[in-house]
Amino acid sequence: MSLPSQELGTTKHLHRVHNFNAGPAALPLPVLEQAQSELLDYRSTGMSILEMSHRSPAFENLMLETEQDLRDLLGLPDEYKVLFLQGGATMQFAMLPMNLRPAGTSADYTVNGTWGKTALKDAQKLGATRLAGTSEATNFDRVPETLDLDPQAAYLHITSNETIHGVQWQSEPQPPQGVPLVCDISSDFLSRPIDVGKYAFLYAGAQKNAGPAGVTVVILREDLLERVPEGLPVMLDYRVQVAGGSMHNTPPTFSIYIVGLVFKWLKAEGGLAAIARRNREKAGLVYGAIDNSGGFYHGHAVPKDRSMMNVTFHLPDESLEKAFATQAENEGLVGLKGHRSVGGLRASLYNAVSLDSAQALAEFMVEFQRKNG
Amino acid sequence: MSLPSQELGTTKHLHRVHNFNAGPAALPLPVLEQAQSELLDYRSTGMSILEMSHRSPAFENLMLETEQDLRDLLGLPDEYKVLFLQGGATMQFAMLPMNLRPAGTSADYTVNGTWGKTALKDAQKLGATRLAGTSEATNFDRVPETLDLDPQAAYLHITSNETIHGVQWQSEPQPPQGVPLVCDISSDFLSRPIDVGKYAFLYAGAQKNAGPAGVTVVILREDLLERVPEGLPVMLDYRVQVAGGSMHNTPPTFSIYIVGLVFKWLKAEGGLAAIARRNREKAGLVYGAIDNSGGFYHGHAVPKDRSMMNVTFHLPDESLEKAFATQAENEGLVGLKGHRSVGGLRASLYNAVSLDSAQALAEFMVEFQRKNG
Repeated sequence: MSLPSQELGTTKHLHRVHNFNAGPAALPLPVLEQAQSELLDYRSTGMSILEMSHRSPAFENLMLETEQDLRDLLGLPDEYKVLFLQGGATMQFAMLPMNLRPAGTSADYTVNGTWGKTALKDAQKLGATRLAGTSEATNFDRVPETLDLDPQAAYLHITSNETIHGVQWQSEPQPPQGVPLVCDISSDFLSRPIDVGKYAFLYAGAQKNAGPAGVTVVILREDLLERVPEGLPVMLDYRVQVAGGSMHNTPPTFSIYIVGLVFKWLKAEGGLAAIARRNREKAGLVYGAIDNSGGFYHGHAVPKDRSMMNVTFHLPDESLEKAFATQAENEGLVGLKGHRSVGGLRASLYNAVSLDSAQALAEFMVEFQRKNG
Repeated sequence: MSLPSQELGTTKHLHRVHNFNAGPAALPLPVLEQAQSELLDYRSTGMSILEMSHRSPAFENLMLETEQDLRDLLGLPDEYKVLFLQGGATMQFAMLPMNLRPAGTSADYTVNGTWGKTALKDAQKLGATRLAGTSEATNFDRVPETLDLDPQAAYLHITSNETIHGVQWQSEPQPPQGVPLVCDISSDFLSRPIDVGKYAFLYAGAQKNAGPAGVTVVILREDLLERVPEGLPVMLDYRVQVAGGSMHNTPPTFSIYIVGLVFKWLKAEGGLAAIARRNREKAGLVYGAIDNSGGFYHGHAVPKDRSMMNVTFHLPDESLEKAFATQAENEGLVGLKGHRSVGGLRASLYNAVSLDSAQALAEFMVEFQRKNG
């Protein structure tokens, strides 16, 4: 793919590949172009956004706008607080039980892939947990078939989309009355509308759908803060982070800035309903190539729980999988190698991956099968 | 200051102010220009560094080079490990005692400003500490005059430079035999050569001298890892972070990239001895304006403990201080307002602040005094 680089006013052609990376991942080209154009002088401040105090009016305004754009996109009610934290979703694996599982209570975890399992492991180190459901017996090819829920649980934790296994909850499970639903939404955040009122706590590493690595979006219902125990270190205390407006200490300013540009891009694209339509179309092209291959391509996830974000599939043998990844890369389709724990191939189709890229991949799959099938 | 914007091939002039921000702070213009020039296509990979997998050969190579450049700059022996973590120095305030203060032991803290005091407070929440020395009685205008050191301490913690108060250890205190010296070196990191062998542990939020916000450099002597207790959450465990090469989960890739460019710039500028000479010259200009003002400007720190990085000073009254900051900003000298806890003015003169900027400030000070003194 070669696009004219209009922003820079040159005739040089821009070299851009089809980027199927699982994260960090593709960003919208207009976002990158805007960041590039103002990198030396952010909106006539005479300095880069990278050089700007987080206490400056320009940055404080950026924070407010970024939060408001997110609220608009999600239709987020006032009783939810928004935080921009560091440490990735993995840091939330620890902060969550530290803050929201009071002494003497237990938390329920559902596990349908690597990330849910990792979240459970960290929570177990810090206190009581229950495994409320798992699909490990079938190598995480689906969401758990049945859930065994504790009506007294401090919360019920789900992973809405498992990036590595390519398995997604089509709709959220219903926790028992009064049990807060907590969701690691990292890899399908803002990919489709959700009923936010069903959730008490949502968290997402930005580097899939929302921006670059280095910032984690946390959305929490205000009443949960009453649970936060005394004596946590300041950086690990949600109450401190809410009180400081994510600026108890210096926040990851540039990552937040890019996330803000992505939110604006998403609004301009028509919001979550519009992006969900395009995401379904993209995934349909790639799953179509799998389903129409007569078994040459074999999806990892059972069809009903397929992820719209991460399409995981195998070829008849490993040498063909290797050849597929190599030849694809040679043709400008990059990031397709599957995670080592699952093997095979994985195409991540986050919001910023274009319909053109999905189309190019589907065509490559047909052509590769024709030559090697 | 107006420089021709050559990189973009336009005739537009680049608007750049004199940036005295305390952090995030000025970055070297060549670093920003390089980041801008390759923001849409990182070294012919066809994607932005923001879109690149941290597991890609290009990024893994960047990590190795960045670490090696830091080792070269500091003359860092092999027994030291280098980490690039998230959460700022404030996260280290918690991780440090969690990891390196074994059960039943106590840690010594010296306090000569806000940051040392904050570090102590978090450590107190998590276990036993001793205040080994403080200058709070004189509002942190110096390093502690005397230290009362525990020969059994798990470690001795110092803050090499207090950003808010503008007080700097001219050379490190000597801990008792066998007690590891631990240093929050955030705001004078890489500003002068240090005898790294005297330290067991160094940590620095990058957003002063080393790069943008969002990454914290941690340097630790390998033998300290034996102290790390079992059962820490993965993100808070130095052993996990060392084993994963700072990539147990997705690291803050863009911030690390910029830090890497800053290290290369610093090497090209002649390394730490050369930058220290320039830093002394810059600080000399501003302290000179204070000392030659006949008392119109009054430095916060006692002369022997003055910081080469953060020059803190007062004017005869608050309304003059306000006028100073406003008029300076109108003339393109920004970020001079002092921290609310000290008041007055503060000029941060980190590595990327040019001699020209320091000169412009010194001249402005003379002129302001002439008009208002």
